Amino acid sequence: MINILPIPNTVSLVAGSSEGETPLNAFDGALLKAGIGNVNLLKISSIMPPKAELVPLPKLPMGALVPTAYGCIISDNPGELIAAAVSIAIPKDEELCGLIMEYSGKCSKREAEERVREMAKIGFEMRGWEIKKIESISVEHEVEKIGCAFAAAALWYK
Amino acid sequence: MINILPIPNTVSLVAGSSEGETPLNAFDGALLKAGIGNVNLLKISSIMPPKAELVPLPKLPMGALVPTAYGCIISDNPGELIAAAVSIAIPKDEELCGLIMEYSGKCSKREAEERVREMAKIGFEMRGWEIKKIESISVEHEVEKIGCAFAAAALWYK
Amino acid sequence: MINILPIPNTVSLVAGSSEGETPLNAFDGALLKAGIGNVNLLKISSIMPPKAELVPLPKLPMGALVPTAYGCIISDNPGELIAAAVSIAIPKDEELCGLIMEYSGKCSKREAEERVREMAKIGFEMRGWEIKKIESISVEHEVEKIGCAFAAAALWYK
Repeated sequence: MINILPIPNTVSLVAGSSEGETPLNAFDGALLKAGIGNVNLLKISSIMPPKAELVPLPKLPMGALVPTAYGCIISDNPGELIAAAVSIAIPKDEELCGLIMEYSGKCSKREAEERVREMAKIGFEMRGWEIKKIESISVEHEVEKIGCAFAAAALWYK
Repeated sequence: MINILPIPNTVSLVAGSSEGETPLNAFDGALLKAGIGNVNLLKISSIMPPKAELVPLPKLPMGALVPTAYGCIISDNPGELIAAAVSIAIPKDEELCGLIMEYSGKCSKREAEERVREMAKIGFEMRGWEIKKIESISVEHEVEKIGCAFAAAALWYK
Repeated sequence: MINILPIPNTVSLVAGSSEGETPLNAFDGALLKAGIGNVNLLKISSIMPPKAELVPLPKLPMGALVPTAYGCIISDNPGELIAAAVSIAIPKDEELCGLIMEYSGKCSKREAEERVREMAKIGFEMRGWEIKKIESISVEHEVEKIGCAFAAAALWYK
């Protein structure tokens, strides 16, 4: 086998929300609040590699390509409550991978986080695997003009 | 030139469908059925590198970053027929790349597959290239509660 | 640290538009016009790595995985004017990264380009950073049957 894309071995849960003068500026602001505004997110579907460590977000080089699973919602309805959440189900069997689930919607952070935790549980049931624990993060935002709520599992290397 | 992202040299056609308690769980289930539920899909636009080999899906390391072109539809309309398909046009001239086309919609797998085959043909006409052959795959699903149909060309390395 | 995904060190602005017999063929045609139709775009959110050079699009190997930020619109309304634009704000401080902004909509290329330039300015204000200059590109297209307008910042390596 020639070299493949390197498989990440850490995962970090982050979340943030922001207003912005345009939808993309709100998204950019939410990424900045989450600590990953100055890197390039590569959207992935949504696996924590086996034995990856759950760590606080490391210092990422600016412009790095960061494999990331995320939930994100942007709204321009003033007064609306929006939320985003991400969960990771970590397997009992260390040879198996973890499962990342993301959700965003017009709801509270509590509701979003309950949903992603439930979704991770379902995903493990569908695999017939046992869960060691579920980690999760969420954020909510009340829209002033244009707002974004963003939650992510960022994969990285150590 | 410093090292670039490694260019894949195999391509595998896979498809699957599933019900799920949420849209993302249905998507996850369809990926599991397709055999790529435990890796991280990196969505690409949609080229088979020159001389890449069409092979049955290799055993992928869990959590790997897998460049993948895919068509996907999720529906929560009970009774609805949904389908997804992917095609690859392979060039006569081995120095050229292949073209991957994807489609999903509320139709039969036969209709979805005819469409992607036609789309691949058109793409080669637009390039002025000759086709050696077109390969394709498709799947259909009748929605019970929340269903997903998914078809993909997964690129990999050997 | 084990090897990470290689961080690009060049960025190229490209744009193109096309008609197509299907939406995906129109997209494919716009990529061909932009000069990046025979590679695999990996969609990124939207940073120019520090010290990356702005260069004319290099010759990319067919099938390469090319990290790309882009704006794209597809329309099947005959007569409609659609446009896409991308900008890059380049920082005065060379240790900092640049910010790529993208926009697409039913408007002229001039309007799209003004917007992305303004968005890049706002993004730098949100960071409290000073701009050295803003570069941008845009394209517009009057839809005949099915049309696509596409503008991108393609990152690469030298």
